[in-house]
Amino acid sequence: MTELSEKNTHPLEGHFLYSFLNPKSITVFGANNEYLGTMGAMQLRNVIFGGFPKDKIFPIHPKLKEVQGLKTYQSVLDLPEIPDLAFIILRPHIVPQVLEECGQKGIKKVIITSGGFREIGNEDLYNELIKITTKYDMRFIGPNCLGVYNAWYRYPEYSDTNFNTMWIHETPERGNISIIAHSGTIASHIFWACRDIGVKISKSFSIGNEDDIDIVDCLNYLKDDPETSVIGLYIEEIKRGKEFMDLIKDITSKKPIVAIYAGGTKAASRTIMGHTGSIAGDDNIFESVFKETGIISTISIKDFMYYLREFSSGILPKGNRLGILTDSGGCGAMMAKAAEKSGLAVPEFSEELKSKLKEHVVDIANIDNPLDLTFSFGVHNKYIKIPKLMINSDEIDGVVIYAAWAVEEFLDIVKKSGGDVPDIFAQTSNEMMSRAYLKPMQKFARKKSAPILYICPQGYSNDWVKEFIKLNIPIFDLWDMPIKCFEVLAKYSEYRKKLSQTSKS
Amino acid sequence: MTELSEKNTHPLEGHFLYSFLNPKSITVFGANNEYLGTMGAMQLRNVIFGGFPKDKIFPIHPKLKEVQGLKTYQSVLDLPEIPDLAFIILRPHIVPQVLEECGQKGIKKVIITSGGFREIGNEDLYNELIKITTKYDMRFIGPNCLGVYNAWYRYPEYSDTNFNTMWIHETPERGNISIIAHSGTIASHIFWACRDIGVKISKSFSIGNEDDIDIVDCLNYLKDDPETSVIGLYIEEIKRGKEFMDLIKDITSKKPIVAIYAGGTKAASRTIMGHTGSIAGDDNIFESVFKETGIISTISIKDFMYYLREFSSGILPKGNRLGILTDSGGCGAMMAKAAEKSGLAVPEFSEELKSKLKEHVVDIANIDNPLDLTFSFGVHNKYIKIPKLMINSDEIDGVVIYAAWAVEEFLDIVKKSGGDVPDIFAQTSNEMMSRAYLKPMQKFARKKSAPILYICPQGYSNDWVKEFIKLNIPIFDLWDMPIKCFEVLAKYSEYRKKLSQTSKS
Repeated sequence: MTELSEKNTHPLEGHFLYSFLNPKSITVFGANNEYLGTMGAMQLRNVIFGGFPKDKIFPIHPKLKEVQGLKTYQSVLDLPEIPDLAFIILRPHIVPQVLEECGQKGIKKVIITSGGFREIGNEDLYNELIKITTKYDMRFIGPNCLGVYNAWYRYPEYSDTNFNTMWIHETPERGNISIIAHSGTIASHIFWACRDIGVKISKSFSIGNEDDIDIVDCLNYLKDDPETSVIGLYIEEIKRGKEFMDLIKDITSKKPIVAIYAGGTKAASRTIMGHTGSIAGDDNIFESVFKETGIISTISIKDFMYYLREFSSGILPKGNRLGILTDSGGCGAMMAKAAEKSGLAVPEFSEELKSKLKEHVVDIANIDNPLDLTFSFGVHNKYIKIPKLMINSDEIDGVVIYAAWAVEEFLDIVKKSGGDVPDIFAQTSNEMMSRAYLKPMQKFARKKSAPILYICPQGYSNDWVKEFIKLNIPIFDLWDMPIKCFEVLAKYSEYRKKLSQTSKS
Repeated sequence: MTELSEKNTHPLEGHFLYSFLNPKSITVFGANNEYLGTMGAMQLRNVIFGGFPKDKIFPIHPKLKEVQGLKTYQSVLDLPEIPDLAFIILRPHIVPQVLEECGQKGIKKVIITSGGFREIGNEDLYNELIKITTKYDMRFIGPNCLGVYNAWYRYPEYSDTNFNTMWIHETPERGNISIIAHSGTIASHIFWACRDIGVKISKSFSIGNEDDIDIVDCLNYLKDDPETSVIGLYIEEIKRGKEFMDLIKDITSKKPIVAIYAGGTKAASRTIMGHTGSIAGDDNIFESVFKETGIISTISIKDFMYYLREFSSGILPKGNRLGILTDSGGCGAMMAKAAEKSGLAVPEFSEELKSKLKEHVVDIANIDNPLDLTFSFGVHNKYIKIPKLMINSDEIDGVVIYAAWAVEEFLDIVKKSGGDVPDIFAQTSNEMMSRAYLKPMQKFARKKSAPILYICPQGYSNDWVKEFIKLNIPIFDLWDMPIKCFEVLAKYSEYRKKLSQTSKS
């Protein structure tokens, strides 16, 4: 992924959406210096602080000479060049006039953030918008949207910059997950949580009313985007049903898709009507479409984020049999119950495997699946020996490990309490443990196609947990979510298996 | 709560469990200086660092002269006084002998942490245990448990100490939630997460195999404990069914109970058999017991924690009608869908209420339920005016508010970006906002019996979120959990309403 992006060409450079994500120059309508009073001010701020070349940002303002340190122009017609992208955050009734001038100037790409169009019944304004953009052969995202976030911004050349037209200043780590959303909230407000739990974003599209560029266009782009391996959708309505179906079938045969469909109940549909002006459809129709096309569906925002993160780690299991390794009986029982209730198998181990495992556990440990180690800081067995035995047995398709304790924290406590650090822990650090346990097992898991999911109850703020996130190894603070994540991995894997059987026969 | 605990007497001083939670002196078997090699060492460490008077801790050790800075004794028979509580963390086969000596010394209360009894089929050892404790009229918690955590430890007098026999060093804030668990993990490993999200603990019992003191005994204590308003249970088996039923019916008429039942599937029951030696029963039986007795049930550890926290905030709604106030259409639609799918009502507002609301929102806002404010930092309307109008209308029974932005973070960003802080935000600080918006609305919500739940996507590490936690006001990082929490509030409220109707008729 990184390799590709450091080259000077991008396979999608010819795609009409490319310059929405990687404009070489932009003009902005509706930004000022009132950061918290005007959404556009925050949006311009984020473009600037993302690292966009300052001499290629052209704010338009009727009165101010300067906006956020940038020289302004009174009209787009006065600009010294034709910007790749215009970005409009004005009251809706002014939009048509501004759009007309953009057309005259020769601008072909526009993001219209302004709300107040068909979502509040303003059909006339919508019609004007279409008339002008058709006349000038312009493409636009919106209206009623936040635009785009691109962590792989590539102009003037690849560097540590992003292109962020949303008003949320927080940005997650750069990764291979892309989002397309009818809601700017789902496309950006989750960025704090993404950063905390390691949901690493490639691109995010807030497409609003999608009066021109729609979810199908964006999917088309992400299908071939080498920086995108997993796609998240937040859907209020699908306008081009057939194209959507064909496209997602094609995509899910290579890249997993996780989707939220927000309509289908009374109050939700009422909200959607007022939000993007869409008529939301029957929940069952969407559910059956998702099922048929291998899309993983949820109505929970946390599930959405965790499922995306899980798929982005890149290891699919061969089946649905889960091995549970734990140092807590209670947590083991809860995971086993949750797994079985969701249709996963937690098979009893064979006698052969049990006798092999017996060599590596204390005598009061419960040799079974879940395998309960009881209290134990024997890290080599927990991280290496036992998971390898389990996976090599071919009796299970993935492992959940509780608890991946942050040993450094315990060593600190011991020292602070006046105790001596035991010799075997003298060299222990998060970095050493990452090198000795996490990296080799990640390699092993990948080779065996057997995901290993870890739980550290000390939480995401702990530096040890950050080691997992660095490596894109699935790490959790508690034990509900790993089971749900393994469930969707197994489900998607099953879908892919069926696909390949169909294509063979 | 605080008031009561600062007095010098406690209404439960006469209860046999009182000195398990508030011993004046203890003796410890099995602690040494190998903090990470021996669980008992960590357990003793936590007792010491909880603030227990050091001259009242008597470690017993056959060889070491000193353990963790404390003088040791070779035998309990040598102790200068009879400790209130003995605490045994030894290999199982040594336990009977030690217990016999405790009996001879006159010790009446014992916590047996050691595992290796009936949970691994060791019936003889179990029989010895019962024989000895019966002979000496001793009561014990365990075996195969972590003992107790008491945030309200009261000896020598109320002070800022806790009594923690578990091996987990992290402790949550002191509060009114108590836990009884057949698993030490559920009783203590969640403490990091509890601290992060503000689940404030009063007491936690890890009761293990409950060969003597069982869940019914602990419930009996918590029923009358003035420091406990909400109870969480993790159940693998119920031994005294009838007593349990009678007791929980009594308790749930005053204090809410949230319960996890971990058995009921194949692998889970296998684990439980090896964990506490219990025979887990049918899931359906437990579900119907929970329903009949008003217990809120879940198999998710996160739900468990959030539900406990929600009840601990102390405001029950009168019904199940939810008002949703949002500045994001997408998030509003998702919440409305989740609410309706879980049986809550998200009623359309009356024309009268709509016209009142119209005065306080921008013209592109969607006047409905969910009420979508769109982008807005108009805090007074969002925190005070609109929620008050909604609740005063009597058209809804509670409100969820998205987003309770951490304004300080935005002001910081504005300043760092070289911008001026707008005049209206000049005096804004978390503390000021807490005083101006949170406290008065908490009072209002309590008066009206209408819970207000807030969401701040900037997450739990943000100082603004900590202001809510300080006040025990329900705050969330994303929007799934507030809907689930309002659902269980409404469910429990409905149960209590039915109870009071039955008792009247």
